[in-house]
Amino acid sequence: MTENDQYHERLPLEKVFRDPVHRYIHVQHQLILDLINAREFQRLRRIKQLGTASFTFHGAEHSRFTHSLGVYEIARRICDHFMRSYPTKVPGDGGWDDSERLVVLCAALLHDIGHGPYSHTFEHIFHTDHEKITIDILLSPETEVHQILSKVSPDFPEKVASVIDKTYPNPQVVQLISSQIDADRMDYLLRDAYYTGVNYGTFDLTRILRVIRPYKEGIAFRIQGMHAVEDYIVSRYQMYMQVYFHPVSRGMEVTLDHLLKRANRIYDLPETQFKHSFSLLIPFFEKRFTLEDYLKLDDGVLNTYFTLWRDEQDQILSDLATRFLDRKPFKSVTYQKETDLPIIKKLQGLIQKAGYETDYYTALNNSYDLPYDFYRPNQKSRPAQIELIYPDHTLIELSEASDLVKALTGKQHGDERFYVPKEFLKPHSSSEISLFEPLYQEFTRYIKNGAIYHSDEDK
Amino acid sequence: MTENDQYHERLPLEKVFRDPVHRYIHVQHQLILDLINAREFQRLRRIKQLGTASFTFHGAEHSRFTHSLGVYEIARRICDHFMRSYPTKVPGDGGWDDSERLVVLCAALLHDIGHGPYSHTFEHIFHTDHEKITIDILLSPETEVHQILSKVSPDFPEKVASVIDKTYPNPQVVQLISSQIDADRMDYLLRDAYYTGVNYGTFDLTRILRVIRPYKEGIAFRIQGMHAVEDYIVSRYQMYMQVYFHPVSRGMEVTLDHLLKRANRIYDLPETQFKHSFSLLIPFFEKRFTLEDYLKLDDGVLNTYFTLWRDEQDQILSDLATRFLDRKPFKSVTYQKETDLPIIKKLQGLIQKAGYETDYYTALNNSYDLPYDFYRPNQKSRPAQIELIYPDHTLIELSEASDLVKALTGKQHGDERFYVPKEFLKPHSSSEISLFEPLYQEFTRYIKNGAIYHSDEDK
Amino acid sequence: MTENDQYHERLPLEKVFRDPVHRYIHVQHQLILDLINAREFQRLRRIKQLGTASFTFHGAEHSRFTHSLGVYEIARRICDHFMRSYPTKVPGDGGWDDSERLVVLCAALLHDIGHGPYSHTFEHIFHTDHEKITIDILLSPETEVHQILSKVSPDFPEKVASVIDKTYPNPQVVQLISSQIDADRMDYLLRDAYYTGVNYGTFDLTRILRVIRPYKEGIAFRIQGMHAVEDYIVSRYQMYMQVYFHPVSRGMEVTLDHLLKRANRIYDLPETQFKHSFSLLIPFFEKRFTLEDYLKLDDGVLNTYFTLWRDEQDQILSDLATRFLDRKPFKSVTYQKETDLPIIKKLQGLIQKAGYETDYYTALNNSYDLPYDFYRPNQKSRPAQIELIYPDHTLIELSEASDLVKALTGKQHGDERFYVPKEFLKPHSSSEISLFEPLYQEFTRYIKNGAIYHSDEDK
Amino acid sequence: MTENDQYHERLPLEKVFRDPVHRYIHVQHQLILDLINAREFQRLRRIKQLGTASFTFHGAEHSRFTHSLGVYEIARRICDHFMRSYPTKVPGDGGWDDSERLVVLCAALLHDIGHGPYSHTFEHIFHTDHEKITIDILLSPETEVHQILSKVSPDFPEKVASVIDKTYPNPQVVQLISSQIDADRMDYLLRDAYYTGVNYGTFDLTRILRVIRPYKEGIAFRIQGMHAVEDYIVSRYQMYMQVYFHPVSRGMEVTLDHLLKRANRIYDLPETQFKHSFSLLIPFFEKRFTLEDYLKLDDGVLNTYFTLWRDEQDQILSDLATRFLDRKPFKSVTYQKETDLPIIKKLQGLIQKAGYETDYYTALNNSYDLPYDFYRPNQKSRPAQIELIYPDHTLIELSEASDLVKALTGKQHGDERFYVPKEFLKPHSSSEISLFEPLYQEFTRYIKNGAIYHSDEDK
Repeated sequence: MTENDQYHERLPLEKVFRDPVHRYIHVQHQLILDLINAREFQRLRRIKQLGTASFTFHGAEHSRFTHSLGVYEIARRICDHFMRSYPTKVPGDGGWDDSERLVVLCAALLHDIGHGPYSHTFEHIFHTDHEKITIDILLSPETEVHQILSKVSPDFPEKVASVIDKTYPNPQVVQLISSQIDADRMDYLLRDAYYTGVNYGTFDLTRILRVIRPYKEGIAFRIQGMHAVEDYIVSRYQMYMQVYFHPVSRGMEVTLDHLLKRANRIYDLPETQFKHSFSLLIPFFEKRFTLEDYLKLDDGVLNTYFTLWRDEQDQILSDLATRFLDRKPFKSVTYQKETDLPIIKKLQGLIQKAGYETDYYTALNNSYDLPYDFYRPNQKSRPAQIELIYPDHTLIELSEASDLVKALTGKQHGDERFYVPKEFLKPHSSSEISLFEPLYQEFTRYIKNGAIYHSDEDK
Repeated sequence: MTENDQYHERLPLEKVFRDPVHRYIHVQHQLILDLINAREFQRLRRIKQLGTASFTFHGAEHSRFTHSLGVYEIARRICDHFMRSYPTKVPGDGGWDDSERLVVLCAALLHDIGHGPYSHTFEHIFHTDHEKITIDILLSPETEVHQILSKVSPDFPEKVASVIDKTYPNPQVVQLISSQIDADRMDYLLRDAYYTGVNYGTFDLTRILRVIRPYKEGIAFRIQGMHAVEDYIVSRYQMYMQVYFHPVSRGMEVTLDHLLKRANRIYDLPETQFKHSFSLLIPFFEKRFTLEDYLKLDDGVLNTYFTLWRDEQDQILSDLATRFLDRKPFKSVTYQKETDLPIIKKLQGLIQKAGYETDYYTALNNSYDLPYDFYRPNQKSRPAQIELIYPDHTLIELSEASDLVKALTGKQHGDERFYVPKEFLKPHSSSEISLFEPLYQEFTRYIKNGAIYHSDEDK
Repeated sequence: MTENDQYHERLPLEKVFRDPVHRYIHVQHQLILDLINAREFQRLRRIKQLGTASFTFHGAEHSRFTHSLGVYEIARRICDHFMRSYPTKVPGDGGWDDSERLVVLCAALLHDIGHGPYSHTFEHIFHTDHEKITIDILLSPETEVHQILSKVSPDFPEKVASVIDKTYPNPQVVQLISSQIDADRMDYLLRDAYYTGVNYGTFDLTRILRVIRPYKEGIAFRIQGMHAVEDYIVSRYQMYMQVYFHPVSRGMEVTLDHLLKRANRIYDLPETQFKHSFSLLIPFFEKRFTLEDYLKLDDGVLNTYFTLWRDEQDQILSDLATRFLDRKPFKSVTYQKETDLPIIKKLQGLIQKAGYETDYYTALNNSYDLPYDFYRPNQKSRPAQIELIYPDHTLIELSEASDLVKALTGKQHGDERFYVPKEFLKPHSSSEISLFEPLYQEFTRYIKNGAIYHSDEDK
Repeated sequence: MTENDQYHERLPLEKVFRDPVHRYIHVQHQLILDLINAREFQRLRRIKQLGTASFTFHGAEHSRFTHSLGVYEIARRICDHFMRSYPTKVPGDGGWDDSERLVVLCAALLHDIGHGPYSHTFEHIFHTDHEKITIDILLSPETEVHQILSKVSPDFPEKVASVIDKTYPNPQVVQLISSQIDADRMDYLLRDAYYTGVNYGTFDLTRILRVIRPYKEGIAFRIQGMHAVEDYIVSRYQMYMQVYFHPVSRGMEVTLDHLLKRANRIYDLPETQFKHSFSLLIPFFEKRFTLEDYLKLDDGVLNTYFTLWRDEQDQILSDLATRFLDRKPFKSVTYQKETDLPIIKKLQGLIQKAGYETDYYTALNNSYDLPYDFYRPNQKSRPAQIELIYPDHTLIELSEASDLVKALTGKQHGDERFYVPKEFLKPHSSSEISLFEPLYQEFTRYIKNGAIYHSDEDK
């Protein structure tokens, strides 16, 4: 296979895709156009970016396809800016080497290509790993994506893969794709804010794209732009608190998790008759799936099985499928891991008494995010810290320059929630309560202001 | 069943849903909340508002659920405005009777509830009718929607149905839901503009909601707001021209149409083995579907069957499924019905010679819209004309007051396109062409500037 | 004087100005920076872009400075786009010659530099001409602007001037600055819409900047962008109808006109004592002003004299100054020139009887705009028509391609209004009316729905 | 004088003013309309909201008039929300008493009416006090504002005044107008963000207006809205850091301050001939001004005198007027009060040597803001802390609930800057430097990364 010139050169006329967040996505290489048209990439249209969050924020029905184009576009704009303002002159001078452009653009476009439907939950039940699958898609000779990348050069797929798994030698390239302020995060904050309709995610991308610059060890931000970077960190924190960790979405996630768990258990029972209504999922239940099997899945495929399961005889399976399809989330209260587990045990007892199998009808769900951290020598896995750069090229780490960021640094933010059927927290009507009125009364004693409550006698 | 008071009264505290277009959807009645939570309504989350348009405008992945909430919200705001500014004092004085509020809100919320996946195409192949199904859902005792509506009063479902089929006696109510400037259209123009990222649909809703008013025979607009209404009509025209009739989306629609047509034909063949991979669609292929069958369908269900069909043996079925899933639309040129059909016949011959079955690989597709029309006595089906109202209550029909609207009045706008496999219009690479080079050369002779072209010798 | 290299070369790092409409104004040449900092240009900060319109749309207080930067920025983006996509290769091939960039940018930035305070009205009373003064500023050796431009080359000021007066040989350059769709109009429509808070002006600039292209005879638009151009024309029409011709702003303009007219008359009276309170205006009253005199004027200077005149003895002068400063506009009704002049005469008689000098307390004001026109051979002064261009380079004139534009083509839009003191149209309270109750009753007989009204007896 | 009923009742049809920030300002009482039309209120059109900030952010040319309407509108929306959701039932129950509406609306509209041109600087030089003047305008029988307010009831002007000076008995009313999160601040953050074109100020007003509620001791925010309030505090902090404290605007403020200081000194000199060119300012130079004198001033009046002074003989006066009118700001470096004063003294010496009088050509300028603080018993002047409220009515102070706010609490943010003529920090061209090259070289030794720099030898 010889290298393909048209993939290195610009298209004579760029193509554009209208995008509500970035106005236009500008495609300037045949390579990028071909990747977008590849089967594995088009499949991302059928996988929602935010999973169950659209059950809370109904506007947020956008797909991973849309987000991936956005990450590409931000990466492209950064490359343009670097090329114009900071071109390398001597190797190792900390400037930008524009021959890295293609590998950056491909990594940006493809960084999420291994995602499957409802990734987080699916992985939890079936032990898949979307990051590993991303690399598989890039390297497996059967995929269209691999075949297209190989036209650039035989080792190009591995180059792109190494950017994504952070082993690529040029730290500027790696940090553009994965760091605490990378093209991925910048797009998803803006995009998720746009589609949910909240303001919190809308930091000033244009300004950040003006102050970002390459230096020897990666990417830094000119000190004049400190407040724009600060604002990005705050936006990130706000989006996690307000959108990504919303209790209702997590209530739907818990429902989904329990539904798949139930299906998995049922499937293994000898008496299960309805295996045909599992078809595309069988390789996963039987723990022998191939990349080809995985690539057939999407949100609609899972929902189709849920529609079939709704009519199955197993009551729990059918009930959980209905709850998921018709959006009947479990409800929750917050709890303190250190002190409330005994009460939770007691509450689970009450729920069990009311006839609910607690394995499927209660859950603990913890969501935490680390909005930002600086580099700590003994914690290898932490991403690179954000550096600000002075006119004389001195660096200063972000949280040293910003009180606001310092307040969020190195601390997990989030909460721990105990999920139960809605009936226990929000009785729908008088007739419903009567079924388990005394249980409900007792249950209620332990709840106050949306949290597990310790009356004196419990202490 | 007795009437249910809580359904008439306001909730003590309204609930809100974040919405990117209207900021918040305000729910003020338990009835509305219950309808939103009904199974048939939640199903709308799984049906895209714009069908194949998201293949052109990737941002436009929003569902009919989202749109339905928006129509409800606009209707609610209009009711509030009417109640505050134009309350009826004596029956028949042309003012607003706020006891109509509930029926308006329900009709607004539910007007699209009968839509199925890829409605237009699905109806074409399977002869379903989403308007009829909407009425069925409202009136059928099995649906949750019906059961909820019945709690207001036993005849309430029929009232709502009569608003939707325009037989309700109060013309103000009917025109809020269906007229040339109704809550439905106002929401979809704004929403589709927001999600596609084009500007064209963004007329001034706030101003229109200030100048709209009830009068004896329906809804009118104060003359001061003439330019806002004019702008709405122009927006509507622009959205049809630029978004709804986009040739690429129609190329995907043609692909889908031919795919379902092929499946339908194959299904009837005695040798077809793979009927299990049709499951939820069987009632439709066998022309004996129930409302229950219909309510199980959604975009994801259809796409799941396409994924299964992709691996079937029938080459055409498998190829068309692949083209649809991987977004390989047919391409098109415009033609003139009056003069170009002989050339199209010739071109179809060339395509057939190249080995494509023209029934499945070519299509004629015409898209036309009537942006606005005034009432013409002999054309009963036309919607009510838009009336402007002077301070002294004189009326003037919109196109009489606006040159701009007059230019769009009573004329169909759109075009006629001939669709063929992409290879005939945009050869991908030199190797591809060689397969049918002479055919391609001849084909090309008849195309110029994206249209069928008559050279002199053809005339 | 030798040519100055730094003026031709790009700045090592561009400077930006935050702009709410275009996000950033990008300055890439020392020349542009120096022009912005020139005294004559900074003076534009003290002159409102929309004159009296901010009395109607209170948000629209932006200055000509702001607009001028915006025109520059649009011109700059078009140059970038032309340079990237349509560079000239052989002289006369219709491509873009980027050595024209500096002259385009300067003409864009400076095209309005001759404007004075409340231009339209000021010119009407004092017979100044802002277009002539623009040229004077460019060519007069005393101005900073001239001195800066001269550093590029001795004939550069004249080059820039010839672009502005449309005698520059390259039609592409001229049309970018003045045509029916030039950088000036594109900025003011967007900017005025942003600051007034109306939607009507917001056409899709990004799309227009994608489809604009140079050709041999000037500027054209790719046929794919037809609807974006159409939308621009409609926006323009809407802004004129809704904002620029708003009756209240014209009511303030009429007040201002009469105030200056009165001051002019008073100044000449031998008994006028207060000439010191005219100081900076004296050269204009005495019809012997220099460029230097003109450059000292701005909105604040005029308003300062109005504040002084408010305390003067002449009742009419003092009253009109008060009306202007405190925003007490004359009110109006529309009339038909052909038929209503006799009635207007009658109404003026009534107003005179009520004690108002009609010369200062009534006015006829006509505002008309031609939204678009194609070239008509016998009307030399019309601007170049808008051309759309096909892939094979055929041209088609805009109104031939668009029904919507055709509807607006070649027709003046606007209205004719008769202005009178507010008391005659909107009596404030019962006490006020009593002063001239019978006159008012008679006056009112001739008014209906905001227009002069012919009862039968008048015909 | 009797009370005026129309002032308590709603207008039959509300009037609206288009507003780019809030879409519409809704006026529902004749009282409000009359106040807007009052001479003292119209005068606010001629005073910029942000003083010298438009020299940095050219888009921010909006007036105090515009902002005052916005404050009114936010207050109005809060009243509507309180009346609907939290009406008082028994006196003292902590609910909202809607008979407070008129006093709230008037206080909101008029809270800034005492502002003069370039308030901060003007007050510094002439020892005026805009808060005291606001009260004067409300209470002085000569003002139109007073006469209008008195029509409500004879004691109504004093009521409004007591809200503004925080002595009004109902703390809900006082806190709506002045607290750490009041209608005033909410409007100016949003408005200044809109007009400057920065994002930082755009917190989620709609959400805050949903979670704000009255309680016995004032105003609180429902705990669900904690993040929206947090975001408001961060926005406030960001606007101070990025916009209000921008070094360039402060450089213009310093110029203005020195210009007025010079004029003041010159005026007193016996030899000053040109007192006529001070006219409207004379009462201020002579320290004997009346309210009437004050109300004649506005930005344009001051600028007009600067235009006259530009031609005066005193070189410093003429030079500083030119610098201000033509936007030639002093430039600055940051310094540390504790350690850098000796170096500053040295630098001033160099500047003096170069021929600049340091009194007029250098300045120290410190800008600090306290983004938020909770109530500290010993610091009486601090505004009320922000309270969040749980479903069971428990309160929690904001900084206790938010890490982010805690990080900003009780700490002054800002910086200290040393201003000098631009020539010392940014030599314009080689010819310019030569005049004082050695001085400049020495000066430069003490500056690094935009701050005063201590080389070792200086320590």
